[in-house]
Amino acid sequence: MKILTSESQTQTLFKYLTSSVVPRPIALVSTRDKHGNVNLSPFSFFNVFSANPPILVFSPARRGRDNTTKHTYENLLEHKECVVNIVNFDIVEQMSLSSSEFAKGVNEFVKAGFTELESDHISVPRVKESPIQIECKVDQVIALGDQGGAGNLVLARVICMHIDDDILDSDKNIDPNLLKAVARLGQNYYSKAYGEALFQLNKPAQNVGIGFDALPKEVLNSKVLLASDLAQLASWPEMIDETEVNEYKLIELSELFLEHEDDAKALEIALHKKAKLLIEQKNIEQALMCVLAFNN
Amino acid sequence: MKILTSESQTQTLFKYLTSSVVPRPIALVSTRDKHGNVNLSPFSFFNVFSANPPILVFSPARRGRDNTTKHTYENLLEHKECVVNIVNFDIVEQMSLSSSEFAKGVNEFVKAGFTELESDHISVPRVKESPIQIECKVDQVIALGDQGGAGNLVLARVICMHIDDDILDSDKNIDPNLLKAVARLGQNYYSKAYGEALFQLNKPAQNVGIGFDALPKEVLNSKVLLASDLAQLASWPEMIDETEVNEYKLIELSELFLEHEDDAKALEIALHKKAKLLIEQKNIEQALMCVLAFNN
Repeated sequence: MKILTSESQTQTLFKYLTSSVVPRPIALVSTRDKHGNVNLSPFSFFNVFSANPPILVFSPARRGRDNTTKHTYENLLEHKECVVNIVNFDIVEQMSLSSSEFAKGVNEFVKAGFTELESDHISVPRVKESPIQIECKVDQVIALGDQGGAGNLVLARVICMHIDDDILDSDKNIDPNLLKAVARLGQNYYSKAYGEALFQLNKPAQNVGIGFDALPKEVLNSKVLLASDLAQLASWPEMIDETEVNEYKLIELSELFLEHEDDAKALEIALHKKAKLLIEQKNIEQALMCVLAFNN
Repeated sequence: MKILTSESQTQTLFKYLTSSVVPRPIALVSTRDKHGNVNLSPFSFFNVFSANPPILVFSPARRGRDNTTKHTYENLLEHKECVVNIVNFDIVEQMSLSSSEFAKGVNEFVKAGFTELESDHISVPRVKESPIQIECKVDQVIALGDQGGAGNLVLARVICMHIDDDILDSDKNIDPNLLKAVARLGQNYYSKAYGEALFQLNKPAQNVGIGFDALPKEVLNSKVLLASDLAQLASWPEMIDETEVNEYKLIELSELFLEHEDDAKALEIALHKKAKLLIEQKNIEQALMCVLAFNN
């Protein structure tokens, strides 16, 4: 399917953009107006964008329906401070309730059952029930348009982060399984960023990998190894020299070579199967020697 | 734990910001320089920020280590087009490989085993293996600072979206279980936004909910109902009138009232347990009548 934006309605674009750029982290943002009336509302057009200076960006967009603006946006024009409260599974129902369109001046802390906690550096309260509360000063608000559906980039400079000790591991790192963050997808979907959903990938070495182009052709065309397997072989920082491959072949693969002496195709498959197993065990160097042994 | 940004090093801020604002969607961005050399690199400082105009924002930040800039950033100053390719589980290993710091001019499509596909409206190739490819023209690049760790907001206007038919359901909506999107957390963590991780919440009604402040005090202090249960009761659009509650009490709750005739505390707990069950069954109206019946 192809969607040309110049020929599409805002509603259609909204639907496909919000179900394509997923999962989106959720900012539960507290603000106040010039009279001190507090507001609380969630935004998933949100992320961190810089560490130095530390900048978060979120977008209280103009409503597609009638081009009205949100109270958060109006408040930020009057009072340039906010708290970005991180949303976890325990408070996701209350967060959802706070997104209802309560009348101007209504305090969503009260409506959604949240507790106001005084901030240290700004005059906007934080959400006690949120595991991470980030006090911010707003540097700039950039309007991306003036029609319904137009975003407003709020550039929020982080002044101070409050992190619940209960979500830290023994090294004072945030443990995603204790944080239990949730995120927004399209339609009515949310996702959990913990438990079964979590996995780890090693960061690529400072030394760059050898690349797919360094792998032999029959390895690239393997019926056993998937692209994700090949990617791990191609991440190895340097090509392994022939002598080393030969040594590995003699010690570890002689039985396999003997077994398939008369059938090169079967040997290739056997070597790739063994390599796949080694990749699963995160033994990339041996896996690479295993596939290279075929032509050695 | 409290982190004051004015007293913290960039590295520390980076660590806590990237493990707090989670999970972050991943843009695998293809660009080209003025000579036509292609580059491909992933960014998790990324989100959609507007539907009208349709705008994605991502940040190829200055390196914290040595304040050098990324090839993606340099290319975008020379040639203001890019493709944002969405990353799913099938290509996450290749995406990770493409994030290695290959030398300037090296084509990461080749190194990471991706296939270049010609774009329809711009002269930058898309990633064939990505389930959603978004052709963009870059409106603006906003530098958030000039030191190591400074973000650069790339405002990318969407021209055209290519969506693989295989990830659409029968209504032509994107099915998250077919898309299999992955996202970035802190440290080496990633998360899957499909399968067990998915859940749904009904969008709050256009009619706003009654709010926590409309619930009786003994319900707010319930030992049975959690804040997430109360949030669902408080989302009901209007208070239920006494006559209706009485009718429900007579028909559905008379046995419960009879059983606990002499023990108000036990009755309250029994009513809240029944309400909790009804909330789990998404029968919010009856759950609300159930807790209101106590004082009726």
